[in-house]
Amino acid sequence: MKVDGKHFRSIWRERDGWSVGAIDQRRLPHEFVVARLTSCEDAAVAIRDMLVRGAPLIGATAAYGMALAMREDASDAGLKRAYETLVVARPTAINLKWALDEMRATLAPIDPVERAEAAYARADEIVEQDVEINRGIASNGLKLIEAIASKKPGETVNVLTHCNAGWLATVDWGTATAPIYLAHERGIKIHVWVDETRPRNQGASLTAWELGHHGVPHTVIPDNTGGHLMQHGMVDLAIVGTDRVAANGDVCNKIGTYLKALAAHDNNVPFYVALPSPTIDFTVNDGIRDIPIEQRSGTEVTDMTGRTADGRLETVRIVPEGSPVANYAFDVTPARLVTGLITERGVLKPDRAALAAAFPDRIGAAAE
Amino acid sequence: MKVDGKHFRSIWRERDGWSVGAIDQRRLPHEFVVARLTSCEDAAVAIRDMLVRGAPLIGATAAYGMALAMREDASDAGLKRAYETLVVARPTAINLKWALDEMRATLAPIDPVERAEAAYARADEIVEQDVEINRGIASNGLKLIEAIASKKPGETVNVLTHCNAGWLATVDWGTATAPIYLAHERGIKIHVWVDETRPRNQGASLTAWELGHHGVPHTVIPDNTGGHLMQHGMVDLAIVGTDRVAANGDVCNKIGTYLKALAAHDNNVPFYVALPSPTIDFTVNDGIRDIPIEQRSGTEVTDMTGRTADGRLETVRIVPEGSPVANYAFDVTPARLVTGLITERGVLKPDRAALAAAFPDRIGAAAE
Repeated sequence: MKVDGKHFRSIWRERDGWSVGAIDQRRLPHEFVVARLTSCEDAAVAIRDMLVRGAPLIGATAAYGMALAMREDASDAGLKRAYETLVVARPTAINLKWALDEMRATLAPIDPVERAEAAYARADEIVEQDVEINRGIASNGLKLIEAIASKKPGETVNVLTHCNAGWLATVDWGTATAPIYLAHERGIKIHVWVDETRPRNQGASLTAWELGHHGVPHTVIPDNTGGHLMQHGMVDLAIVGTDRVAANGDVCNKIGTYLKALAAHDNNVPFYVALPSPTIDFTVNDGIRDIPIEQRSGTEVTDMTGRTADGRLETVRIVPEGSPVANYAFDVTPARLVTGLITERGVLKPDRAALAAAFPDRIGAAAE
Repeated sequence: MKVDGKHFRSIWRERDGWSVGAIDQRRLPHEFVVARLTSCEDAAVAIRDMLVRGAPLIGATAAYGMALAMREDASDAGLKRAYETLVVARPTAINLKWALDEMRATLAPIDPVERAEAAYARADEIVEQDVEINRGIASNGLKLIEAIASKKPGETVNVLTHCNAGWLATVDWGTATAPIYLAHERGIKIHVWVDETRPRNQGASLTAWELGHHGVPHTVIPDNTGGHLMQHGMVDLAIVGTDRVAANGDVCNKIGTYLKALAAHDNNVPFYVALPSPTIDFTVNDGIRDIPIEQRSGTEVTDMTGRTADGRLETVRIVPEGSPVANYAFDVTPARLVTGLITERGVLKPDRAALAAAFPDRIGAAAE
């Protein structure tokens, strides 16, 4: 999408044809800096340290990481090592494993001398496919927004979102934001309540930044606020992204999503989850029981980085010295609280039958 | 309670006999600074700017504010002016109005020359009464904790709390923390999950600070985390405080409380609200509809203050320039989500009949 009028993607091949450019999302919203990844290790570190984040973008980065690895060592051993290096970079987003499995399926059967070129070609496809999928999510989600807009002509449609499932979390368009950007483009009056999303503040740092730079009206709110807004009729629908959807429709997403789903349910606010099909994990039957929840460093909770009034970037500690902290990165929202799953093949009921019927091709992949 | 072994209250008369000392809570957890209030205006500013906060402590501060006002001008006009100055300092906590009504009822009928002395005496009583009430809450709440401890002998009882309803929010003991401190004193193994409580971080700044300095095991968590913990059996009960309880049992408390109540309900975790009886507002029949919700400055959301690694206090902006923010300070939890109200007269059902039966004296006051 646009950054002050100029079009950007979150990741791309550089003009040299082989190195990979990516927006360093750790520096947003304070600085707009592009990083250059030149090795498989660079890609793994970018994923682990959250230079890139968001399930689809993690998948895209891993795909390019495999391509970078094939430039260095295209042997079977090199392929295996690259896969193993990348697959452990983040534990929760299933798109990571999906992209790596796709890459390995392409590369394993062919001659090592052909692997580097084939790897870039397949990684490019995965990247373009992500954009196409998100365009599909945009047009399927748009119908939901149009239906609400038609019931309150001339009034603003208020959407609540959590974390960043925006274009920065994907290659372009985003998942949760895709219908929002399309509605905005079509001239529907739309306003987004952006959950700050502690502890890493992806809502305030990334979603507000990208909506603001694209020109979409929005308001940043503390994560505590959504319940009150829904209770008072100030939210028409919620749309969030996801890092992994289980076969039963349970939705794993950024910590705090479950609380917003509860509030939506309690106030009859539709709660949608937008996802590209690679986010579905048909091997997990029960999301709450079986999806691993990443625990991250306590410094994400204790320390905050921002700009001082005179423009310096500073990191400050906000928790008393000596107080322990816990940092669970995700939670799982039970399918019963989800109104629908917005996918590239339509808006689905969050259950096993609907997912299986829409994505029979993905079930087969899971069984392999 | 104790600060590193030494006993403190949150507010007191200084040795000069007339000025008022209070811990400047805006400086915690980074600095422990005592402020001296010497006028009614000082007290009003302390309440408005949240040098003091917490419904019971706001009431106590307002009482001393009336006493300070009587030193300056004990006429009927002075009494009226002091009441009017203080009652608008914060809109939500009903204890403010309660304390001012108590003071006025004492002072209005007597000769102005006697008012200053009578005001200090009545303010002292309000302060001591707060401590007594909280001791009652402690012993009534202790039974709930003991009942849980007896079901898991030798194991730790995990309590989740939101915001600061600790001794810093009252004169001493706290409301939500009173049973926790007493259980800790009695040797029950107890651990507190402390919601950070954005945007002002009263959980991390105040609750973690006071629990830590008193020696109670605790862990600070982002506000997003409680649902996940409850879903996985890591919370035995929740206890929060409140700024106002409506006659129907609806509970107004710091923004985000409603979300935790929803999660507790969804996971069969008991959700208790601890309150002194001056927090009940029998004039409000429907809490969700009728309790005014204070909106505070957006800088509370955009800016965070903390210590840099080299020890400087800095304030940093964490939201992109140009992104609007909203800052609703409270929300209302419907009575249906509350397991019980822990008061100085026992643990009550959150409904009109139970409240009226336990506090017939307070209904009368409301009708005046």
